[in-house]
Amino acid sequence: MSKAMHAAIAESIREQIRSGELAVGDTLPSESQLCEQWNASRGPVRQALATLRAEGVITGGSGKPPVVCTTSIPQPFDSLLSYSAWAQAIGRTPGQRTLELALRPADHLAASKLGVKEGSPVVQVLRLRYLDGEVTMLERATFVEHVGRLLFDFDCDSGSMWAYLQSRGITFAKASHIIDAVAADQIDSCHLEVPEGAPLLRQQRTARTADGEVVEYHDDRYRPETISFSLENTLDVRTALLRNARS
Amino acid sequence: MSKAMHAAIAESIREQIRSGELAVGDTLPSESQLCEQWNASRGPVRQALATLRAEGVITGGSGKPPVVCTTSIPQPFDSLLSYSAWAQAIGRTPGQRTLELALRPADHLAASKLGVKEGSPVVQVLRLRYLDGEVTMLERATFVEHVGRLLFDFDCDSGSMWAYLQSRGITFAKASHIIDAVAADQIDSCHLEVPEGAPLLRQQRTARTADGEVVEYHDDRYRPETISFSLENTLDVRTALLRNARS
Repeated sequence: MSKAMHAAIAESIREQIRSGELAVGDTLPSESQLCEQWNASRGPVRQALATLRAEGVITGGSGKPPVVCTTSIPQPFDSLLSYSAWAQAIGRTPGQRTLELALRPADHLAASKLGVKEGSPVVQVLRLRYLDGEVTMLERATFVEHVGRLLFDFDCDSGSMWAYLQSRGITFAKASHIIDAVAADQIDSCHLEVPEGAPLLRQQRTARTADGEVVEYHDDRYRPETISFSLENTLDVRTALLRNARS
Repeated sequence: MSKAMHAAIAESIREQIRSGELAVGDTLPSESQLCEQWNASRGPVRQALATLRAEGVITGGSGKPPVVCTTSIPQPFDSLLSYSAWAQAIGRTPGQRTLELALRPADHLAASKLGVKEGSPVVQVLRLRYLDGEVTMLERATFVEHVGRLLFDFDCDSGSMWAYLQSRGITFAKASHIIDAVAADQIDSCHLEVPEGAPLLRQQRTARTADGEVVEYHDDRYRPETISFSLENTLDVRTALLRNARS
Protein backbone atom coordinates (compact mmCIF):
# COMPACT_ATOMS: atom_id res chain seq x y z
CA MET A 1 0.00 0.00 0.00
CA SER A 2 1.61 3.24 -1.10
CA LYS A 3 1.72 5.93 1.56
CA ALA A 4 1.60 8.59 -1.12
CA MET A 5 -1.64 7.19 -2.51
CA HIS A 6 -3.76 7.20 0.67
CA ALA A 7 -2.31 10.55 1.75
CA ALA A 8 -3.03 12.01 -1.70
CA ILE A 9 -6.63 10.78 -1.66
CA ALA A 10 -7.21 12.22 1.84
CA GLU A 11 -5.62 15.57 0.93
CA SER A 12 -7.65 15.84 -2.27
CA ILE A 13 -10.88 15.36 -0.29
CA ARG A 14 -9.75 17.93 2.32
CA GLU A 15 -9.03 20.36 -0.52
CA GLN A 16 -12.50 19.85 -2.01
CA ILE A 17 -14.00 20.67 1.40
CA ARG A 18 -11.73 23.70 1.89
CA SER A 19 -12.68 25.07 -1.53
CA GLY A 20 -16.40 24.57 -0.91
CA GLU A 21 -16.73 22.01 -3.72
CA LEU A 22 -17.92 19.60 -1.01
CA ALA A 23 -20.23 21.06 1.66
CA VAL A 24 -21.36 19.77 5.06
CA GLY A 25 -23.91 16.99 4.51
CA ASP A 26 -22.58 16.08 1.06
CA THR A 27 -21.93 12.41 0.40
CA LEU A 28 -18.47 11.46 -0.86
CA PRO A 29 -18.08 9.19 -3.88
CA SER A 30 -18.39 5.50 -2.96
CA GLU A 31 -15.31 3.37 -2.25
CA SER A 32 -15.55 1.83 -5.73
CA GLN A 33 -15.89 5.23 -7.37
CA LEU A 34 -12.83 6.50 -5.47
CA CYS A 35 -10.89 3.35 -6.48
CA GLU A 36 -11.78 3.96 -10.11
CA GLN A 37 -11.10 7.69 -9.95
CA TRP A 38 -7.66 7.17 -8.38
CA ASN A 39 -6.88 3.89 -10.15
CA ALA A 40 -6.28 2.53 -6.64
CA SER A 41 -7.10 -0.65 -4.75
CA ARG A 42 -9.48 -0.70 -1.76
CA GLY A 43 -6.62 -0.50 0.77
CA PRO A 44 -5.47 3.09 0.20
CA VAL A 45 -9.05 4.32 -0.31
CA ARG A 46 -10.18 2.80 2.99
CA GLN A 47 -7.12 4.13 4.76
CA ALA A 48 -7.78 7.64 3.43
CA LEU A 49 -11.40 7.46 4.63
CA ALA A 50 -10.34 6.09 8.04
CA THR A 51 -7.92 9.00 8.44
CA LEU A 52 -10.59 11.56 7.56
CA ARG A 53 -13.01 9.86 9.97
CA ALA A 54 -10.41 9.92 12.76
CA GLU A 55 -9.84 13.63 12.03
CA GLY A 56 -13.58 14.22 12.40
CA VAL A 57 -13.91 15.48 8.83
CA ILE A 58 -16.35 12.80 7.64
CA THR A 59 -18.78 10.38 9.26
CA GLY A 60 -20.05 7.05 7.96
CA GLY A 61 -18.41 3.67 7.74
CA SER A 62 -19.87 0.17 8.37
CA GLY A 63 -21.64 0.23 5.04
CA LYS A 64 -22.97 3.78 5.46
CA PRO A 65 -21.62 6.14 2.79
CA PRO A 66 -19.11 8.75 4.03
CA VAL A 67 -20.67 12.18 4.58
CA VAL A 68 -18.85 15.49 5.09
CA CYS A 69 -19.56 16.67 8.66
CA THR A 70 -17.36 19.73 9.09
CA THR A 71 -15.69 22.46 7.09
CA SER A 72 -13.07 22.77 9.83
CA ILE A 73 -10.09 21.03 8.26
CA PRO A 74 -7.36 19.92 10.67
CA GLN A 75 -4.18 21.96 10.36
CA PRO A 76 -0.91 20.20 9.53
CA PHE A 77 1.86 19.72 12.12
CA ASP A 78 3.74 22.94 11.41
CA SER A 79 0.71 25.20 11.93
CA LEU A 80 0.83 24.67 15.70
CA LEU A 81 4.63 24.82 15.76
CA SER A 82 5.49 27.69 13.49
CA TYR A 83 3.81 31.05 14.00
CA SER A 84 5.04 32.17 10.57
CA ALA A 85 3.76 29.05 8.76
CA TRP A 86 0.42 29.40 10.54
CA ALA A 87 -0.01 33.09 9.72
CA GLN A 88 0.82 32.50 6.06
CA ALA A 89 -1.57 29.53 5.89
CA ILE A 90 -4.48 31.74 7.01
CA GLY A 91 -3.50 34.51 4.59
CA ARG A 92 -2.15 36.95 7.18
CA THR A 93 1.28 38.57 7.41
CA PRO A 94 3.54 37.46 10.26
CA GLY A 95 6.13 39.79 11.71
CA GLN A 96 8.73 39.77 14.47
CA ARG A 97 11.10 42.01 16.40
CA THR A 98 13.90 40.30 18.31
CA LEU A 99 14.38 41.71 21.82
CA GLU A 100 17.16 39.36 22.93
CA LEU A 101 19.26 36.43 21.70
CA ALA A 102 21.34 35.04 24.54
CA LEU A 103 23.59 32.14 25.44
CA ARG A 104 23.22 31.59 29.18
CA PRO A 105 23.14 28.86 31.83
CA ALA A 106 19.84 26.96 31.94
CA ASP A 107 17.66 27.90 34.90
CA HIS A 108 15.58 25.28 36.69
CA LEU A 109 12.58 25.54 34.32
CA ALA A 110 14.60 25.47 31.08
CA ALA A 111 16.70 22.56 32.34
CA SER A 112 13.68 20.48 33.30
CA LYS A 113 11.81 21.21 30.06
CA LEU A 114 14.82 20.41 27.84
CA GLY A 115 16.13 17.53 29.94
CA VAL A 116 19.57 19.14 30.39
CA LYS A 117 21.54 19.89 33.58
CA GLU A 118 20.73 23.10 35.41
CA GLY A 119 23.53 25.55 34.64
CA SER A 120 24.51 24.00 31.31
CA PRO A 121 24.42 26.46 28.38
CA VAL A 122 21.21 27.04 26.43
CA VAL A 123 20.23 29.65 23.84
CA GLN A 124 17.25 31.87 24.63
CA VAL A 125 15.35 34.14 22.26
CA LEU A 126 12.82 36.78 23.28
CA ARG A 127 10.77 38.00 20.29
CA LEU A 128 7.69 40.09 19.85
CA ARG A 129 5.36 38.71 17.16
CA TYR A 130 2.97 40.64 14.93
CA LEU A 131 0.03 39.81 12.69
CA ASP A 132 -0.58 42.32 9.88
CA GLY A 133 1.56 44.76 11.83
CA GLU A 134 -0.36 44.43 15.14
CA VAL A 135 1.36 43.10 18.27
CA THR A 136 -0.14 39.70 19.15
CA MET A 137 2.36 37.61 21.11
CA LEU A 138 5.54 37.55 23.18
CA GLU A 139 7.66 34.50 22.40
CA ARG A 140 10.19 33.09 24.88
CA ALA A 141 12.12 30.28 23.17
CA THR A 142 14.86 28.15 24.73
CA PHE A 143 16.99 25.84 22.60
CA VAL A 144 19.52 23.16 23.51
CA GLU A 145 22.97 24.58 22.87
CA HIS A 146 23.89 22.81 19.61
CA VAL A 147 20.60 23.82 17.99
CA GLY A 148 20.44 27.32 19.45
CA ARG A 149 23.96 28.17 18.30
CA LEU A 150 22.74 27.79 14.69
CA LEU A 151 20.67 30.94 15.29
CA PHE A 152 23.86 33.01 15.72
CA ASP A 153 24.10 32.85 11.90
CA PHE A 154 20.45 33.86 11.43
CA ASP A 155 18.71 37.23 11.48
CA CYS A 156 15.85 36.45 13.90
CA ASP A 157 14.06 39.61 12.68
CA SER A 158 13.89 38.19 9.16
CA GLY A 159 11.37 35.39 9.63
CA SER A 160 10.76 31.86 10.84
CA MET A 161 13.42 30.34 13.16
CA TRP A 162 11.58 27.07 12.64
CA ALA A 163 12.07 27.19 8.85
CA TYR A 164 15.68 28.28 9.28
CA LEU A 165 16.51 25.45 11.68
CA GLN A 166 14.86 22.97 9.31
CA SER A 167 17.04 24.30 6.49
CA ARG A 168 20.04 23.61 8.74
CA GLY A 169 19.01 19.97 9.13
CA ILE A 170 17.01 20.05 12.37
CA THR A 171 13.87 17.97 11.83
CA PHE A 172 11.01 18.60 14.22
CA ALA A 173 8.99 15.39 14.38
CA LYS A 174 6.90 15.59 17.53
CA ALA A 175 5.59 18.29 19.81
CA SER A 176 3.67 18.62 23.07
CA HIS A 177 1.49 21.67 23.66
CA ILE A 178 -0.05 22.97 26.88
CA ILE A 179 -2.62 25.75 26.73
CA ASP A 180 -3.56 27.79 29.77
CA ALA A 181 -4.14 31.34 30.98
CA VAL A 182 -1.58 33.41 32.90
CA ALA A 183 -1.33 36.91 34.35
CA ALA A 184 0.98 39.30 32.49
CA ASP A 185 4.26 39.81 34.31
CA GLN A 186 6.39 42.94 34.09
CA ILE A 187 8.11 41.86 30.84
CA ASP A 188 4.80 40.86 29.19
CA SER A 189 3.25 44.12 30.33
CA CYS A 190 6.04 46.20 28.86
CA HIS A 191 6.12 44.55 25.43
CA LEU A 192 2.50 43.49 24.90
CA GLU A 193 1.30 46.87 26.20
CA VAL A 194 -1.17 45.43 28.72
CA PRO A 195 -1.34 46.12 32.47
CA GLU A 196 0.54 43.78 34.80
CA GLY A 197 -1.82 41.02 35.93
CA ALA A 198 -3.92 41.22 32.74
CA PRO A 199 -5.02 37.87 31.25
CA LEU A 200 -2.85 36.30 28.56
CA LEU A 201 -3.48 33.09 26.63
CA ARG A 202 -0.35 30.93 26.86
CA GLN A 203 0.83 28.09 24.59
CA GLN A 204 3.80 26.20 25.99
CA ARG A 205 5.39 23.64 23.74
CA THR A 206 8.32 21.30 23.60
CA ALA A 207 9.49 19.92 20.27
CA ARG A 208 11.49 16.79 19.60
CA THR A 209 13.46 15.48 16.65
CA ALA A 210 12.71 12.10 15.11
CA ASP A 211 15.37 10.63 17.44
CA GLY A 212 13.35 11.81 20.43
CA GLU A 213 15.77 14.57 21.53
CA VAL A 214 13.97 17.56 23.02
CA VAL A 215 15.49 20.53 21.18
CA GLU A 216 13.28 23.50 22.05
CA TYR A 217 10.86 24.79 24.64
CA HIS A 218 8.57 27.76 23.97
CA ASP A 219 6.43 29.88 26.26
CA ASP A 220 4.26 31.98 23.91
CA ARG A 221 1.87 34.52 25.46
CA TYR A 222 -0.90 36.03 23.37
CA ARG A 223 -2.92 39.17 23.90
CA PRO A 224 -6.23 37.38 24.47
CA GLU A 225 -8.37 39.44 22.12
CA THR A 226 -6.17 38.41 19.18
CA ILE A 227 -6.03 34.60 19.29
CA SER A 228 -8.08 31.59 20.31
CA PHE A 229 -7.79 27.84 19.85
CA SER A 230 -10.73 25.82 18.59
CA LEU A 231 -11.72 22.24 18.07
CA GLU A 232 -14.69 20.39 16.66
CA ASN A 233 -15.41 16.91 17.85
CA THR A 234 -18.03 14.25 17.27
CA LEU A 235 -19.37 11.23 19.07
CA ASP A 236 -17.43 8.81 16.85
CA VAL A 237 -14.04 10.44 17.07
CA ARG A 238 -11.51 10.61 19.85
CA THR A 239 -9.87 13.92 20.28
CA ALA A 240 -6.19 14.41 20.97
CA LEU A 241 -6.95 17.53 23.02
CA LEU A 242 -6.88 16.62 26.69
CA ARG A 243 -8.30 18.60 29.58
CA ASN A 244 -5.93 18.29 32.53
CA ALA A 245 -6.27 19.01 36.22
CA ARG A 246 -3.21 20.28 38.04
CA SER A 247 -2.61 18.28 41.16
CA MET B 1 -16.49 -4.63 7.53
CA SER B 2 -17.85 -4.66 11.06
CA LYS B 3 -17.64 -1.33 12.85
CA ALA B 4 -17.44 -3.14 16.17
CA MET B 5 -14.40 -5.12 15.02
CA HIS B 6 -12.13 -2.24 13.99
CA ALA B 7 -13.25 -0.13 16.94
CA ALA B 8 -12.62 -3.05 19.31
CA ILE B 9 -9.12 -3.64 17.92
CA ALA B 10 -8.24 0.06 18.26
CA GLU B 11 -9.65 0.27 21.80
CA SER B 12 -7.77 -2.85 22.88
CA ILE B 13 -4.48 -1.34 21.69
CA ARG B 14 -5.28 1.97 23.43
CA GLU B 15 -5.99 0.01 26.63
CA GLN B 16 -2.64 -1.83 26.38
CA ILE B 17 -0.89 1.56 26.10
CA ARG B 18 -2.91 3.06 28.97
CA SER B 19 -2.04 0.12 31.21
CA GLY B 20 1.66 0.28 30.35
CA GLU B 21 1.64 -3.17 28.71
CA LEU B 22 2.79 -1.35 25.56
CA ALA B 23 5.35 1.43 26.06
CA VAL B 24 6.57 4.24 23.78
CA GLY B 25 8.86 2.74 21.15
CA ASP B 26 7.29 -0.72 21.35
CA THR B 27 6.35 -2.35 18.05
CA LEU B 28 2.78 -3.57 17.69
CA PRO B 29 2.06 -7.08 16.44
CA SER B 30 2.14 -7.27 12.63
CA GLU B 31 -1.05 -6.97 10.57
CA SER B 32 -1.10 -10.75 10.07
CA GLN B 33 -0.60 -11.38 13.78
CA LEU B 34 -3.45 -8.97 14.60
CA CYS B 35 -5.67 -10.69 11.98
CA GLU B 36 -4.96 -14.06 13.58
CA GLN B 37 -5.34 -12.79 17.13
CA TRP B 38 -8.73 -11.19 16.37
CA ASN B 39 -9.83 -13.75 13.76
CA ALA B 40 -10.32 -10.74 11.50
CA SER B 41 -9.63 -9.90 7.88
CA ARG B 42 -7.09 -7.23 6.85
CA GLY B 43 -9.79 -4.56 6.44
CA PRO B 44 -10.73 -3.97 10.10
CA VAL B 45 -7.09 -4.38 11.23
CA ARG B 46 -5.88 -1.75 8.77
CA GLN B 47 -8.74 0.56 9.68
CA ALA B 48 -7.92 0.24 13.39
CA LEU B 49 -4.25 1.05 12.67
CA ALA B 50 -5.21 4.01 10.44
CA THR B 51 -7.41 5.40 13.24
CA LEU B 52 -4.60 5.08 15.80
CA ARG B 53 -2.18 6.72 13.35
CA ALA B 54 -4.62 9.60 12.74
CA GLU B 55 -4.97 10.00 16.52
CA GLY B 56 -1.18 10.25 16.78
CA VAL B 57 -0.95 7.18 19.00
CA ILE B 58 1.22 5.09 16.65
CA THR B 59 3.55 5.77 13.74
CA GLY B 60 4.51 3.49 10.87
CA GLY B 61 2.64 2.42 7.78
CA SER B 62 3.87 1.94 4.18
CA GLY B 63 5.45 -1.34 5.11
CA LYS B 64 7.06 -0.04 8.31
CA PRO B 65 5.73 -1.82 11.41
CA PRO B 66 3.48 0.29 13.67
CA VAL B 67 5.31 1.68 16.71
CA VAL B 68 3.77 3.25 19.83
CA CYS B 69 4.74 6.93 19.87
CA THR B 70 2.80 8.38 22.80
CA THR B 71 1.21 7.39 26.08
CA SER B 72 -1.18 10.29 25.72
CA ILE B 73 -4.37 8.53 24.68
CA PRO B 74 -7.03 10.72 23.09
CA GLN B 75 -10.05 11.26 25.32
CA PRO B 76 -13.49 10.20 24.09
CA PHE B 77 -16.14 12.71 23.03
CA ASP B 78 -17.79 13.13 26.42
CA SER B 79 -14.58 14.08 28.24
CA LEU B 80 -14.55 17.53 26.62
CA LEU B 81 -18.31 17.90 26.98
CA SER B 82 -19.08 16.66 30.44
CA TYR B 83 -17.13 18.00 33.39
CA SER B 84 -18.44 15.17 35.55
CA ALA B 85 -17.49 12.43 33.07
CA TRP B 86 -14.04 13.98 32.65
CA ALA B 87 -13.39 14.26 36.40
CA GLN B 88 -14.45 10.66 36.97
CA ALA B 89 -12.30 9.45 34.06
CA ILE B 90 -9.18 10.95 35.67
CA GLY B 91 -10.06 9.55 39.07
CA ARG B 92 -11.09 12.85 40.71
CA THR B 93 -14.38 13.77 42.39
CA PRO B 94 -16.56 16.32 40.58
CA GLY B 95 -18.89 18.59 42.55
CA GLN B 96 -21.33 21.40 41.85
CA ARG B 97 -23.42 24.08 43.52
CA THR B 98 -26.24 25.59 41.49
CA LEU B 99 -26.43 29.36 41.81
CA GLU B 100 -29.32 29.93 39.40
CA LEU B 101 -31.70 28.06 37.10
CA ALA B 102 -33.73 30.49 35.05
CA LEU B 103 -36.14 30.64 32.14
CA ARG B 104 -35.62 34.02 30.47
CA PRO B 105 -35.60 35.74 27.06
CA ALA B 106 -32.45 35.06 25.02
CA ASP B 107 -30.06 37.99 24.92
CA HIS B 108 -28.08 38.75 21.77
CA LEU B 109 -25.19 36.36 22.56
CA ALA B 110 -27.39 33.41 23.56
CA ALA B 111 -29.63 33.91 20.55
CA SER B 112 -26.74 33.98 18.10
CA LYS B 113 -24.98 30.97 19.64
CA LEU B 114 -28.15 28.84 19.73
CA GLY B 115 -29.56 30.09 16.44
CA VAL B 116 -32.85 31.24 18.02
CA LYS B 117 -34.60 34.63 17.92
CA GLU B 118 -33.44 37.27 20.37
CA GLY B 119 -36.10 37.46 23.10
CA SER B 120 -37.35 33.90 22.67
CA PRO B 121 -37.22 31.83 25.88
CA VAL B 122 -34.09 29.90 26.84
CA VAL B 123 -33.06 28.15 30.05
CA GLN B 124 -29.88 29.35 31.75
CA VAL B 125 -27.94 27.62 34.51
CA LEU B 126 -25.18 29.19 36.58
CA ARG B 127 -23.21 26.56 38.51
CA LEU B 128 -19.99 26.54 40.46
CA ARG B 129 -17.92 23.39 39.84
CA TYR B 130 -15.52 21.67 42.18
CA LEU B 131 -12.76 19.08 41.91
CA ASP B 132 -12.12 17.11 45.10
CA GLY B 133 -13.95 19.86 46.97
CA GLU B 134 -11.90 22.76 45.55
CA VAL B 135 -13.53 25.48 43.43
CA THR B 136 -12.27 25.19 39.84
CA MET B 137 -14.81 26.63 37.42
CA LEU B 138 -17.89 28.80 36.92
CA GLU B 139 -20.27 27.32 34.37
CA ARG B 140 -22.76 29.43 32.43
CA ALA B 141 -24.97 27.11 30.38
CA THR B 142 -27.78 28.16 28.05
CA PHE B 143 -30.19 25.61 26.60
CA VAL B 144 -32.85 25.86 23.93
CA GLU B 145 -36.21 25.91 25.67
CA HIS B 146 -37.43 22.36 24.99
CA VAL B 147 -34.17 20.87 26.27
CA GLY B 148 -33.65 23.28 29.17
CA ARG B 149 -37.16 22.70 30.52
CA LEU B 150 -36.17 19.06 31.16
CA LEU B 151 -33.83 20.41 33.86
CA PHE B 152 -36.83 21.67 35.89
CA ASP B 153 -37.28 18.00 36.89
CA PHE B 154 -33.60 17.59 37.79
CA ASP B 155 -31.61 18.52 40.88
CA CYS B 156 -28.71 20.38 39.26
CA ASP B 157 -26.74 20.04 42.53
CA SER B 158 -26.85 16.26 42.22
CA GLY B 159 -24.52 15.71 39.28
CA SER B 160 -24.16 15.75 35.51
CA MET B 161 -26.77 17.69 33.51
CA TRP B 162 -25.23 16.10 30.44
CA ALA B 163 -25.88 12.56 31.72
CA TYR B 164 -29.40 13.55 32.85
CA LEU B 165 -30.30 15.06 29.47
CA GLN B 166 -28.98 11.96 27.73
CA SER B 167 -31.18 9.82 29.98
CA ARG B 168 -34.11 11.96 28.81
CA GLY B 169 -33.32 11.19 25.17
CA ILE B 170 -31.15 14.17 24.16
CA THR B 171 -28.22 12.80 22.16
CA PHE B 172 -25.20 15.06 21.86
CA ALA B 173 -23.43 14.12 18.64
CA LYS B 174 -21.18 17.03 17.76
CA ALA B 175 -19.55 19.90 19.59
CA SER B 176 -17.45 22.97 18.82
CA HIS B 177 -15.01 24.27 21.41
CA ILE B 178 -13.22 27.61 21.60
CA ILE B 179 -10.45 28.09 24.14
CA ASP B 180 -9.21 31.52 25.12
CA ALA B 181 -8.31 33.69 28.11
CA VAL B 182 -10.57 36.31 29.65
CA ALA B 183 -10.49 38.75 32.55
CA ALA B 184 -12.71 37.85 35.51
CA ASP B 185 -15.85 39.99 35.64
CA GLN B 186 -17.74 40.84 38.83
CA ILE B 187 -19.71 37.57 38.87
CA ASP B 188 -16.58 35.47 38.22
CA SER B 189 -14.73 37.39 40.89
CA CYS B 190 -17.42 36.83 43.49
CA HIS B 191 -17.81 33.07 42.94
CA LEU B 192 -14.32 32.00 41.88
CA GLU B 193 -12.79 34.14 44.63
CA VAL B 194 -10.31 35.93 42.37
CA PRO B 195 -9.89 39.70 41.87
CA GLU B 196 -11.82 41.37 39.06
CA GLY B 197 -9.61 41.44 35.96
CA ALA B 198 -7.69 38.29 36.99
CA PRO B 199 -6.92 35.81 34.19
CA LEU B 200 -9.34 32.94 33.63
CA LEU B 201 -9.06 30.10 31.11
CA ARG B 202 -12.31 29.90 29.17
CA GLN B 203 -13.83 27.01 27.22
CA GLN B 204 -16.85 28.00 25.17
CA ARG B 205 -18.74 25.23 23.50
CA THR B 206 -21.85 24.61 21.47
CA ALA B 207 -23.29 21.11 21.23
CA ARG B 208 -25.54 19.68 18.56
CA THR B 209 -27.76 16.64 18.31
CA ALA B 210 -27.35 14.11 15.50
CA ASP B 211 -29.99 16.10 13.56
CA GLY B 212 -27.73 19.15 13.69
CA GLU B 213 -29.89 21.18 16.11
CA VAL B 214 -27.77 23.35 18.42
CA VAL B 215 -29.15 22.59 21.88
CA GLU B 216 -26.68 24.13 24.32
CA TYR B 217 -24.06 26.81 24.64
CA HIS B 218 -21.58 26.87 27.52
CA ASP B 219 -19.18 29.52 28.73
CA ASP B 220 -16.99 27.76 31.31
CA ARG B 221 -14.34 29.81 33.12
CA TYR B 222 -11.57 28.07 35.03
CA ARG B 223 -9.30 29.34 37.76
CA PRO B 224 -6.11 29.12 35.68
CA GLU B 225 -3.95 27.33 38.23
CA THR B 226 -6.37 24.39 38.26
CA ILE B 227 -6.80 23.38 34.62
CA SER B 228 -4.93 23.31 31.32
CA PHE B 229 -5.52 21.78 27.92
CA SER B 230 -2.82 19.76 26.21
CA LEU B 231 -2.13 18.14 22.89
CA GLU B 232 0.63 16.02 21.40
CA ASN B 233 1.16 16.07 17.67
CA THR B 234 3.54 14.55 15.18
CA LEU B 235 4.76 15.28 11.71
CA ASP B 236 2.53 12.61 10.13
CA VAL B 237 -0.72 13.58 11.80
CA ARG B 238 -3.08 16.47 11.27
CA THR B 239 -4.46 17.95 14.39
CA ALA B 240 -8.05 19.01 14.87
CA LEU B 241 -6.95 21.83 17.18
CA LEU B 242 -6.88 25.07 15.23
CA ARG B 243 -5.16 28.28 16.16
CA ASN B 244 -7.39 31.18 15.13
CA ALA B 245 -6.77 34.86 14.67
CA ARG B 246 -9.63 37.23 15.45
CA SER B 247 -10.18 39.64 12.65
